[in-house]
Amino acid sequence: MDLSGHNLSAKRIVSMSELSVADIDLILDTAKAMKGISEREVKKAPTLRGRTVINCFMEPSTRTRTSFEISGKRLSADVINISGSGSSLTKGESIKDMMENLEAMKPDLLVIRSAHSGVPLQVAGWIDCPIVSAGDGRNEHPTQSLLDLMTIKETKGKLSGLNISIIGDILNSRVARSNLTAMKTVGCNVTVCGPATLLPRKIEKFADQVTTCRETAVKDADVIMTLRIQRERIGQAKFPSLREYSKHFGLNLKVMEKARKDVLLLHPGPINRGVEISPEVADGPWSSILEQVTNGVAVRMAILYLMTGGVRQN
Amino acid sequence: MDLSGHNLSAKRIVSMSELSVADIDLILDTAKAMKGISEREVKKAPTLRGRTVINCFMEPSTRTRTSFEISGKRLSADVINISGSGSSLTKGESIKDMMENLEAMKPDLLVIRSAHSGVPLQVAGWIDCPIVSAGDGRNEHPTQSLLDLMTIKETKGKLSGLNISIIGDILNSRVARSNLTAMKTVGCNVTVCGPATLLPRKIEKFADQVTTCRETAVKDADVIMTLRIQRERIGQAKFPSLREYSKHFGLNLKVMEKARKDVLLLHPGPINRGVEISPEVADGPWSSILEQVTNGVAVRMAILYLMTGGVRQN
Amino acid sequence: MDLSGHNLSAKRIVSMSELSVADIDLILDTAKAMKGISEREVKKAPTLRGRTVINCFMEPSTRTRTSFEISGKRLSADVINISGSGSSLTKGESIKDMMENLEAMKPDLLVIRSAHSGVPLQVAGWIDCPIVSAGDGRNEHPTQSLLDLMTIKETKGKLSGLNISIIGDILNSRVARSNLTAMKTVGCNVTVCGPATLLPRKIEKFADQVTTCRETAVKDADVIMTLRIQRERIGQAKFPSLREYSKHFGLNLKVMEKARKDVLLLHPGPINRGVEISPEVADGPWSSILEQVTNGVAVRMAILYLMTGGVRQN
Repeated sequence: MDLSGHNLSAKRIVSMSELSVADIDLILDTAKAMKGISEREVKKAPTLRGRTVINCFMEPSTRTRTSFEISGKRLSADVINISGSGSSLTKGESIKDMMENLEAMKPDLLVIRSAHSGVPLQVAGWIDCPIVSAGDGRNEHPTQSLLDLMTIKETKGKLSGLNISIIGDILNSRVARSNLTAMKTVGCNVTVCGPATLLPRKIEKFADQVTTCRETAVKDADVIMTLRIQRERIGQAKFPSLREYSKHFGLNLKVMEKARKDVLLLHPGPINRGVEISPEVADGPWSSILEQVTNGVAVRMAILYLMTGGVRQN
Repeated sequence: MDLSGHNLSAKRIVSMSELSVADIDLILDTAKAMKGISEREVKKAPTLRGRTVINCFMEPSTRTRTSFEISGKRLSADVINISGSGSSLTKGESIKDMMENLEAMKPDLLVIRSAHSGVPLQVAGWIDCPIVSAGDGRNEHPTQSLLDLMTIKETKGKLSGLNISIIGDILNSRVARSNLTAMKTVGCNVTVCGPATLLPRKIEKFADQVTTCRETAVKDADVIMTLRIQRERIGQAKFPSLREYSKHFGLNLKVMEKARKDVLLLHPGPINRGVEISPEVADGPWSSILEQVTNGVAVRMAILYLMTGGVRQN
Repeated sequence: MDLSGHNLSAKRIVSMSELSVADIDLILDTAKAMKGISEREVKKAPTLRGRTVINCFMEPSTRTRTSFEISGKRLSADVINISGSGSSLTKGESIKDMMENLEAMKPDLLVIRSAHSGVPLQVAGWIDCPIVSAGDGRNEHPTQSLLDLMTIKETKGKLSGLNISIIGDILNSRVARSNLTAMKTVGCNVTVCGPATLLPRKIEKFADQVTTCRETAVKDADVIMTLRIQRERIGQAKFPSLREYSKHFGLNLKVMEKARKDVLLLHPGPINRGVEISPEVADGPWSSILEQVTNGVAVRMAILYLMTGGVRQN
């Protein structure tokens, strides 16, 4: 693979809307090479030796933080974890000062997770250090979208022209938001499906098809992506009960009978077994949920590498 | 030392009942060699370079976590710490998914600490990645038992045939449980001693002698191991007051007068000075309590090495 | 730079009163060399490979902990973070046992942060392992003072003879306390300024001038250091309201007009914009607040190096 002819155009990855097809291709191709490192006995390359990556997780997240931390360490970067309840950090001014302080310690990359939409983009405007979003509020989760694309491409051999159905709480999902943008960029045909109250206004501008019927969404899909129900939203005005949600939008064996035999099933995790997905489906032959996690490390290794200008020596 | 002729039979260390005499010998011999690394100026061997160790501590434990973390880093492994209040993890289903997710990130070893008995064994049944228990509920604490055995062997030159007395809350102690099994395996003669309400039913099946008299337990012992009183149990039905416990089962200078001059005193830490042990005894000539901590790092280095098939290059 | 002719006289850095002029010079000269490492593309020297540094932060502190962690990692040390709410550690006895336990794991250096004054000094009396204070209660914060001195010397070319004004809650500030001692050692002329209720008794023994008038303090200063108002103290007996404090002791553009054009402005951070300092002043041409953070990493690298006897190979 010769990547020397192209570089990432962006100094930040905070929204999938800022990545071109060439950028996405570059990241996925690099991730494919990086994946090989995690399959070796000695899972380590000296690529980012002497680079400092700060994982700044202002919203708790064990799995995404762990994925970024492993990614950095497998490339020999120095990884620093910072966690913080948002309390002292909800005021813009204070986050700005904190980020300028971190930048003064000369990191090569800042990974930022925030419960508040827009924070990674704001930070990218304040400091020169490259920024990668690890998820912000209900806005975007670009590295999740990239690992989804990697898993789809790995399985289907391509992205363009595929029928993708995203099922769940479209309104509140940063995973859906990043994927809707990214999948349009790479030329997928996207159907969104969920309770009418959980579909954003003007959603038809972003999705090719919109439906409230699970069976319709499943029928011709090459890929089904079901979203996590966030239990803290249950009981809010627009939200059905868990039982009601599961009955109408959950994926079970009976629903999967309507799907293509070779359909690929994705879920951003962690899954609520018996709510948005039944155990039989989660563990069934369609599911690449754990492969998504493996690819998450590969995609983040690729991003750390491409964003810090590490020297490939592996 | 030639260890090439034997390998650990187990892919998991979750119970001392699964380790043979040969396994224990192998671990203690390897630990002896590993201890030398921590005594050097440059405390580092490249043995586990490129191996990923995840410390998954679902119950807080500064000292055991630190010991595992130092062990991994001294062997050049990439060490990832995960902590979690058990809250979201008490349901079996959810722990299974979490562990499968961690496994998908391709770690070489998972260290698991849980407040719930049996969790490390369960996890070992779910995933292929080698598992080491760092203590589970009131069940077992195998690496503590191994560091106890190492300290005893180092001091006494052997394990077989020694008189060991374990004093304290035998009923609730994972340290006692692991040691009772291990010490039977290596041929020690074990006496347990504690308030009648804190001795398990059928304890005589596991211990060679059972007594509620501290002086009897101390008298002919080669090794006295006193257990930590967990203050959160005080006030529970079966439990005496601290003062009452201390009066009848605490180790003080007067009790130690009945012991052999060369008796070895152990305690798994952290100690409650003035409760199960008086300050004079804890800091006295019999005590190897801090040597136990030093040996804890050595034993864990040995286990990480043996379980991940690291290449000896030191 | 030839540092071979001098070594640090102390095995601990817990108070600026224990460092001689030669010690301070040595640390600042070494820090200058260390600063270069953080400016490289590959920010890493093998100096402390195989050394173990434990960051024991019994009081939360993201920025100081991060600074120490980055410092250790850039010198290739193994860095272990321990945090702990003080709750189980407020009794001296228990801290002693904990520290002896940590020492038994053979660290080369312990960094200690505590909410209680005097803890690092106490610990240094208990164990042989070198100790560096990362701030203790209202007592001292020596590495903060050293980074302040470094920033001043870098800007002004010297320390001796400079007029330094420290403005704020002198009574409760460990930064002020460490700097008053250190600046006397290196020959600065120090003015302290704050509300009369927040000036310690007998302060005139430690400061060259004492004033409650901000304008007087600012007038002839080569360096102005304004201290962070700790909001948790507001409302206490001796404390004015935020508004009142800001009105009489805050630094704003109007106050800065009275200062020399080339005055250097320092603040230990994190800053309360609009309280002790206005945004225009914090971001103004006098301010070296972020350079202080950068120098913090350099000073801590120097200290880790000098205290652990690392071999210079960079």
